[in-house]
Amino acid sequence: MGFRLGKIVIVGVGLIGGSFALALKKAGVAGEVVGVGRSQATLDEALRLGLIDRVGACDAATLKDADLVLLATPVGQMPALMQAMAPHLGPQTAVTDGGSTKGDVVAAVRQYLPKHLSHFVPAHPIAGAENSGAAAAKADLYVERKVVLTPLPENVPEAVERVRAAWAACGATVHEMAPARHDRVFAAVSHLPHLLSFALVHDLARRENREEFFRFAASGFRDFTRIAASHPEMWRDICIANKAALLGELEQYQRQLDELRQALIQGDAAALEAVFDEARTVRRAWAEGKLS
Amino acid sequence: MGFRLGKIVIVGVGLIGGSFALALKKAGVAGEVVGVGRSQATLDEALRLGLIDRVGACDAATLKDADLVLLATPVGQMPALMQAMAPHLGPQTAVTDGGSTKGDVVAAVRQYLPKHLSHFVPAHPIAGAENSGAAAAKADLYVERKVVLTPLPENVPEAVERVRAAWAACGATVHEMAPARHDRVFAAVSHLPHLLSFALVHDLARRENREEFFRFAASGFRDFTRIAASHPEMWRDICIANKAALLGELEQYQRQLDELRQALIQGDAAALEAVFDEARTVRRAWAEGKLS
Repeated sequence: MGFRLGKIVIVGVGLIGGSFALALKKAGVAGEVVGVGRSQATLDEALRLGLIDRVGACDAATLKDADLVLLATPVGQMPALMQAMAPHLGPQTAVTDGGSTKGDVVAAVRQYLPKHLSHFVPAHPIAGAENSGAAAAKADLYVERKVVLTPLPENVPEAVERVRAAWAACGATVHEMAPARHDRVFAAVSHLPHLLSFALVHDLARRENREEFFRFAASGFRDFTRIAASHPEMWRDICIANKAALLGELEQYQRQLDELRQALIQGDAAALEAVFDEARTVRRAWAEGKLS
Repeated sequence: MGFRLGKIVIVGVGLIGGSFALALKKAGVAGEVVGVGRSQATLDEALRLGLIDRVGACDAATLKDADLVLLATPVGQMPALMQAMAPHLGPQTAVTDGGSTKGDVVAAVRQYLPKHLSHFVPAHPIAGAENSGAAAAKADLYVERKVVLTPLPENVPEAVERVRAAWAACGATVHEMAPARHDRVFAAVSHLPHLLSFALVHDLARRENREEFFRFAASGFRDFTRIAASHPEMWRDICIANKAALLGELEQYQRQLDELRQALIQGDAAALEAVFDEARTVRRAWAEGKLS
């Protein structure tokens, strides 16, 4: 027999949690899926959409005999949720999360779930979308996507294996990294671009005659700003949670912009072309799979 | 009978010029299409691809009896081309261009084609793509795209009408703006985003361990940096040509980043969320056509 799970608890049944539930159901590895959340309307919707089989709560009845718990809320809510879960978790329940930052999640686990360090295996599924909420969930969200695990030194192999197998059953390829390294890499390739995209749209949105600007915005603008339609609360939490690494990246980027501004002021066409040319070469190599 | 053109001359048979030629042929309004360019290989390719009917040069034989000339080179090459064309243009030939900046094109026309001000109607087809070159040309590039004309006060109505009709025959909707206003708007919604996207990729490309960063870059990064694969020479010229407006936009954006950096340093979650929230609202309204 292959990999099977009995009871799965999803805390936060939005895009990430709902898609995890659907994917495990579709793979035939889920026994029962129980949803937990702060909004009754979302839970009702998740039931109606078949993401979950029933509604539970952060209590012993829901958590004690679960095989796997996924925390899929914005990262800012996770510490309080861990506190609420702590008295009710059974010793054999593996717990994972879907947070885009990992240093803060690890710190919260150490503070609020100190007796569960053997079974909490932090994860980051790299499958964001500008849509969020239960209605956006889909069974194939993780297919051919990467999931990064940042296991704790205290994790027992069975817990890591169960979490790895669950994400793999969703269709993802599973990687491992240290939490600090994870946060540094994602500050650069994900968190900073989101901040920059939000900033550009906000900058334009404040203009008096913004309609004229937006009227002529075309496909380049559309792609550059797609991520500016992302979930504000989620990205607020990510920025705060990964503040140190993100600040480092932002400052380095601001220095890069200062260099470009100087080149512009001096009319240094060669310097501009050198930057653009290297960027294009590397961007194309990346798109062709020659860099990763 | 509808709109018809006799001889059309395309100077620079790349994506913009080649697509213009194909679109006019497809619309059945083109008599003969003559290609002019600096690279014999490109002209041979354009002939082979059927973008042009024959190869010409910047001389009287090619230009004198043309109904329409399109300058479709990077904007940096246009002044020299205008100088070369000046002695050979016939008085009835309408001339337009495909440059992404208009103030510099207008200034070059006034300097190098002072006897042709009645017939030079500057244009900006908003149909860039990260691909360039003759091989990327396609007949539907301009369908349902916008083309902005920035007519000169000296233009005669027949010339504006011929240029407008040609772009309309390509499937575009034609707008009019003053050149300075055009350059201000496009600095904000196109030139700055390109600069920012090039800067991000360049910033990452210089890292020692760049493979690890690029390995985990996902769909948000892909969209944000699609325009960083654009033509370096073309974008160098655009930045230099629109230096004043672009510097203004860059500096305003840098102030916006400074505000976000301060909010991050202070851990001001509410300030970050307010920026993200307004950006999302406006980005979604734009995508739904409610802003333009």
